[in-house]
Amino acid sequence: MKALKEMNTTTNLTLDELFQVCTLRLEKNYSYYLHDISALDLKNAMEYMLHNKGKCIRPMLIYATSQIFDTPWENCDIPACAIELIHTYSLIHDDLPCMDNADLRRNKPSCHKIYGEGIAILTGDALQSLAMQMIASHPAPLKPQRRLDMLTLLSKACGPFGMVAGQTLDLFMMNDKKISLDLLTNIYRLKTGTLFSACVELGRLSSNDDDEFHQQSLDRFGKNIGLAFQIQDDILDMETTTELLGKPQGNDAKNSKLTYPLLCGLDQAKEKVQSLYNDALDAINIFGHQAQLLRELTRYLLQRKQ
Amino acid sequence: MKALKEMNTTTNLTLDELFQVCTLRLEKNYSYYLHDISALDLKNAMEYMLHNKGKCIRPMLIYATSQIFDTPWENCDIPACAIELIHTYSLIHDDLPCMDNADLRRNKPSCHKIYGEGIAILTGDALQSLAMQMIASHPAPLKPQRRLDMLTLLSKACGPFGMVAGQTLDLFMMNDKKISLDLLTNIYRLKTGTLFSACVELGRLSSNDDDEFHQQSLDRFGKNIGLAFQIQDDILDMETTTELLGKPQGNDAKNSKLTYPLLCGLDQAKEKVQSLYNDALDAINIFGHQAQLLRELTRYLLQRKQ
Repeated sequence: MKALKEMNTTTNLTLDELFQVCTLRLEKNYSYYLHDISALDLKNAMEYMLHNKGKCIRPMLIYATSQIFDTPWENCDIPACAIELIHTYSLIHDDLPCMDNADLRRNKPSCHKIYGEGIAILTGDALQSLAMQMIASHPAPLKPQRRLDMLTLLSKACGPFGMVAGQTLDLFMMNDKKISLDLLTNIYRLKTGTLFSACVELGRLSSNDDDEFHQQSLDRFGKNIGLAFQIQDDILDMETTTELLGKPQGNDAKNSKLTYPLLCGLDQAKEKVQSLYNDALDAINIFGHQAQLLRELTRYLLQRKQ
Repeated sequence: MKALKEMNTTTNLTLDELFQVCTLRLEKNYSYYLHDISALDLKNAMEYMLHNKGKCIRPMLIYATSQIFDTPWENCDIPACAIELIHTYSLIHDDLPCMDNADLRRNKPSCHKIYGEGIAILTGDALQSLAMQMIASHPAPLKPQRRLDMLTLLSKACGPFGMVAGQTLDLFMMNDKKISLDLLTNIYRLKTGTLFSACVELGRLSSNDDDEFHQQSLDRFGKNIGLAFQIQDDILDMETTTELLGKPQGNDAKNSKLTYPLLCGLDQAKEKVQSLYNDALDAINIFGHQAQLLRELTRYLLQRKQ
């Protein structure tokens, strides 16, 4: 582990090593900020959610993308933490009784089940603010304009032009059975896709890359894996156990929510996932061996069972 | 009104004129951003809350502070909009059944009463993101580092080191009758004070002022009016009618919430308000006639009945 910490970039790491370094670096940065929060219940709830880490896919996407450009770790720490803070806030609000009403998250009681709905809402709010604060003020070396580019990208991806718009449309799917596949795909792109695309673009922005063709290729990659990931979530919600999933299995059906496999069948949904991942891999072909880690991460995502 | 629009700075405006220009400029900037939101329910809920304007005290504080430094309007538009977006998001989440449980806001049904709790939570979330997006990317001329300073200030003031921390502690006041005046004052500073102080500092940052003594004077001013404003809210909750207040009168008592006048008596609370405003006015004496508008705004706040 010591040797890992001494490495400056993600070059030549395996996926398991990336996960380990990634979680260590997130933890270190969270501690730096959470230490000074005076409202104890808020601090406890934030720690409860942040320490119960999931698969860290979004931060890993940032680090793995930055490998293409041989970027130092510390350049990626800010967006990696910020994206995980945003993702965690969205899970807390999403699990609330008036939203998806899920009691379990990552095999533990969801935030509101432990701390109550009021604190859960405030914890989500605080995590969003903290994400923005970190990008604006974290001491890592990053130019002002690059920070602003990241803030613009992230706030657009998670706000009313991205994730929150998708979640709003998602709420209405619970009661509407007549939705088209096109509209459902659009909701998935907003709800999940924008944040995945943001990860890949944040990885590029962490580097000093300004190549428009690189940006387009990575954008195509990000959009494909984002959509694939959400369809996989639907499939897993139908096929996997609660224990393996870490959240209530069958929650979509419980909420009468229309999903991709319900609309076009399980087989077609699985084919779609495979084809999206193939297209994603195709999009990053141009980066050759530099994209090796990103490719490994993509294959891992394709095979995920939780 | 035409003449007003042509003015470049707040110099020589009356308070009524400032209010009119302020609301016009906020409206124009909101429209620019809200226009492109594709999730209709989200857009409607955001518009419902933003068009039902309150007293616009926070943006007016920014414009009035910037008058001291002869700052062009357009420099202040970004923080003025951002602070009102943050304030509005906090009201929506604060009114929810699991928080203050208030059905009325600015004489209209609160957001969740019209759109439901799920959309209300998402609307608040979206307003917070939009505030950050505006500061990071609004086309107004403002240097990158100044934008980052604003983003750092605002995210700290509204997040787990400011407003949200205050609201967390506030939730616990509903059940705890043994709170000390010092702790209550600290909660008020976090819950209300940090955002007031941020307004004044954002007004200074909109200008190109870098004087440390100016910053200290304005900080003292901001802290005093922020605390005074919250104590006034408590007094008004006890003394004014629901109609004049625009929100449910007696809500603190309904929620068994301990307040400043309950702790030390109405008379002492009123004296405290007067003394805080006096100290605030004293803090901006050094700015002479340049602070005339800020002084008028302070006197208006002292006399407010809603």
